[in-house]
Amino acid sequence: MNGAECLLRTLVANGVDLCLANPGTSEMQFVSALDRVPGMRGVLCLYEGVCSGAADGYARMSNRAAATLLHLGPGLANGLSNFHNARKARSPIVSIIGEHATQHLRYDAPLSADTAAFARTISSAVQVLESAGQMGAAAAQVVRAAYGPPGQVSSLLIPADFSWSEAGSPGPVLARPTPPVPETARIEEARRLLAAGSRTAIFLSDRAMLEPGIAAAGRIASATGAKLFVNRFGARWSTGAGRFAACRIPYFPEMAEPMLRDCGHMILVEAEPPVSFFAYPNRSSLLAPESCHYFTLATIGEDGTAALEALADGLPPAPVLDFNPPAPPDRGELTPDSIGRAIAAYLPEGAIVSDEMVSASGDIVPHLIHSHPWEHLAVTGGAIGQGLPVALGAALSSPGRKVVALEADGSAMYSLQALWTMARESLDVVTVILANRRYQILDVEMKRTGAAVLGRQAESMIDISNPPLEWVPLARALGVPARQATTAEEFSRLFQRAVAEPGPCLIEALLPSGRPSPR
Amino acid sequence: MNGAECLLRTLVANGVDLCLANPGTSEMQFVSALDRVPGMRGVLCLYEGVCSGAADGYARMSNRAAATLLHLGPGLANGLSNFHNARKARSPIVSIIGEHATQHLRYDAPLSADTAAFARTISSAVQVLESAGQMGAAAAQVVRAAYGPPGQVSSLLIPADFSWSEAGSPGPVLARPTPPVPETARIEEARRLLAAGSRTAIFLSDRAMLEPGIAAAGRIASATGAKLFVNRFGARWSTGAGRFAACRIPYFPEMAEPMLRDCGHMILVEAEPPVSFFAYPNRSSLLAPESCHYFTLATIGEDGTAALEALADGLPPAPVLDFNPPAPPDRGELTPDSIGRAIAAYLPEGAIVSDEMVSASGDIVPHLIHSHPWEHLAVTGGAIGQGLPVALGAALSSPGRKVVALEADGSAMYSLQALWTMARESLDVVTVILANRRYQILDVEMKRTGAAVLGRQAESMIDISNPPLEWVPLARALGVPARQATTAEEFSRLFQRAVAEPGPCLIEALLPSGRPSPR
Repeated sequence: MNGAECLLRTLVANGVDLCLANPGTSEMQFVSALDRVPGMRGVLCLYEGVCSGAADGYARMSNRAAATLLHLGPGLANGLSNFHNARKARSPIVSIIGEHATQHLRYDAPLSADTAAFARTISSAVQVLESAGQMGAAAAQVVRAAYGPPGQVSSLLIPADFSWSEAGSPGPVLARPTPPVPETARIEEARRLLAAGSRTAIFLSDRAMLEPGIAAAGRIASATGAKLFVNRFGARWSTGAGRFAACRIPYFPEMAEPMLRDCGHMILVEAEPPVSFFAYPNRSSLLAPESCHYFTLATIGEDGTAALEALADGLPPAPVLDFNPPAPPDRGELTPDSIGRAIAAYLPEGAIVSDEMVSASGDIVPHLIHSHPWEHLAVTGGAIGQGLPVALGAALSSPGRKVVALEADGSAMYSLQALWTMARESLDVVTVILANRRYQILDVEMKRTGAAVLGRQAESMIDISNPPLEWVPLARALGVPARQATTAEEFSRLFQRAVAEPGPCLIEALLPSGRPSPR
Repeated sequence: MNGAECLLRTLVANGVDLCLANPGTSEMQFVSALDRVPGMRGVLCLYEGVCSGAADGYARMSNRAAATLLHLGPGLANGLSNFHNARKARSPIVSIIGEHATQHLRYDAPLSADTAAFARTISSAVQVLESAGQMGAAAAQVVRAAYGPPGQVSSLLIPADFSWSEAGSPGPVLARPTPPVPETARIEEARRLLAAGSRTAIFLSDRAMLEPGIAAAGRIASATGAKLFVNRFGARWSTGAGRFAACRIPYFPEMAEPMLRDCGHMILVEAEPPVSFFAYPNRSSLLAPESCHYFTLATIGEDGTAALEALADGLPPAPVLDFNPPAPPDRGELTPDSIGRAIAAYLPEGAIVSDEMVSASGDIVPHLIHSHPWEHLAVTGGAIGQGLPVALGAALSSPGRKVVALEADGSAMYSLQALWTMARESLDVVTVILANRRYQILDVEMKRTGAAVLGRQAESMIDISNPPLEWVPLARALGVPARQATTAEEFSRLFQRAVAEPGPCLIEALLPSGRPSPR
């Protein structure tokens, strides 16, 4: 069989059964093989960043690697920002990249570039295939490497001639590596720290933020009086009714530092010490006081959940959040607060929320923790444009669960092409666009630079109301049914209906600040 | 003054007066300085690839460097594919990238990445600022480096603390380097080759394809019987009435090779030997016969036009193309051919055409060479999504000239955000979307792999009709007036009106293959 078919058969045998593709000429042999090899679902995206972001969302929900299929260095380049987010999410992803045929690489053809250099920006697991005969072994290896631990973007660059040449049999099925469990001595040391005083905090990230980790950590916190924090930028957080009320550390250091002020010891579980998103003049990057001592119970890539469960052994159950959402608004202005209340009221059990709201997140997420249990997929790497693709991938991983993408109008513009694939695949994604027609977070940041009033040019870098982005026709033009809400009652009604119906839809929540001001 | 203001003043003093921006927090000091420092026009783009592509289009038309302002490694990542195209176009661009403050870099904050590694994928001219005091000198140097020769993407990474700290005076004004003129011996050798036989071809690329180079090369070709070819992937080609009829080398080797079959010698002017876009099994990458001898009259980065003018010294004028467009269609089916005839009839003198049509280009461009004189901005690096941003940048560089963007529906989806900036800045860009609702070039390439009939999955990787992309509402939602044409007569009328009116507009040319088939 040719190299493309050998690759495909090896991926399928190693458990990869979804390929998010934006292929070009160099990948046609692989595309052709999709019809000869059963077991791989190809999903087309109209932009590479949608492929990489969707693979991230898929991995966060399934803990399994999907493949992406991209076209040489420049095609890969368009996927890099969401691969960066996936890297920070520790999502396992198999990135297949077509390359020029080997004899063509010596020429300066238009698409010639250092493809491996593009790939290495987001992962150190980069293989360049050196002969067609290596295909099977390399394909098996690229899957295993994706699982780390921790999970990572694992890349295989395939010169086109190795796809069209004879490549022999498929590669082996390799065992998926499992994260090591921290040794008993660390668990005992954590137990000692927790017993020693009440100024201890537990800080969870990565897969320790999923339901079992939260449950065990909640019992520990409840029994010892330790505070339980979760990484605001962790890939996935299990929250809502029935879960322990862990605390997300706020975005701005002015708000985060008071919460951590009393912290004498911090027990890190699959985490590094918490730092601010950006640095500011005369402020420390570390959010806990300088005097805080850190103890690593589980490193990133270790099984923090197993460590927490060992530590919680014998402890009684902890109190958990009740289902107690605020009343959905039936009147009044449409604001992030009223949007949060409506979503909290109607969010279905087991919903998956992809959150890229930027400035509005702080007003909305606190309402949702009183909703039915749900999964929060957060900003991990800060590369804008992850929200819609991550929602798309989450929906592909989890048929039967409702996915809600909470987006800002500014951030949604970076990867709006994702809407088309949601429509094409009839995915259950409700997209909410919080339209304030500004880069509002930059307004805040601008004032932090000391600028009291924005000049004309600065204002033009932050205002996106001219011309206004019209999200309802944009979504419809990409195949997604859409409606606009301008009052709290209207949003509430539209959201309630949207989560009850199958298939994709979009609600543009036009916030007061996004409306043209009266003259 | 702080570093941001020092940077801005130095850029302006060195002739950079346009900044294509998608800024974030790290760049707020620069944005703030825009209102204190006169002479820099900031233009906001809603996606980084629009910034990099627009800077490319601006450079191709003006031969001047614009600045781009992007946000850390992941923001830069979104600009890389159009920077790749700019690299292949040899466009001078000053790429300013904000970076985390130096004290923040040691932490694994969400946006932390190896920003310089991203920058080096598209240029070797990458500086990382090491202190605020170096700002002035570094800013002057980054502009000079952009001009090469040849032109290149020149990058400066600026940690945020160097923007907010005291940086002293602006940097020096540095002389812009000029491309060296090839020595006389090479001109004499070219003269000897041209005199020796009729099997000599001249192959122009880069700035030798502009009007003066074409004029001189035309006189040489006309006087000696040499064939004159231009690089299909050259950044800009001056053609249309009043110019010598140079020949573009076709895309597929089956069509290119017969044209070059007789070529015994090829004189290269700012060019490497012509190669095919992709390699194919059992085909050479080089398009001229193996026996062809190459002689470099001017290397890439040298002044090929001066060499051609020296070589043409004393030769008589050459015959040039007449204004003789085909009649615009007043009936019949809408096809690339009828679209080409309509555009040729109504293209205004001095128009700039940004061409990313992919499969339809071969049916359209041949008509246009009989039109009024115009400038052709071609695909240079093959990274999809350059057409609209390059048109945007060309319009920013050339007020008073009409810009026409010829796009495919598939390729336009990679950077549709450019339409918004065209609307915001009221730019004279007529965008034509050739909507066949397929990745038609892949259809062709798929058949070249030997696949006679496409399977279901392969078809789903090439068909983009489900759901259909609706370009008229898409464009209107981004602020650009738009109409759809379904007949040749309708397209002809819409295009005639579009070029006569100021401001941006879009025409979706719905080709028969893009229409739903009767059931």
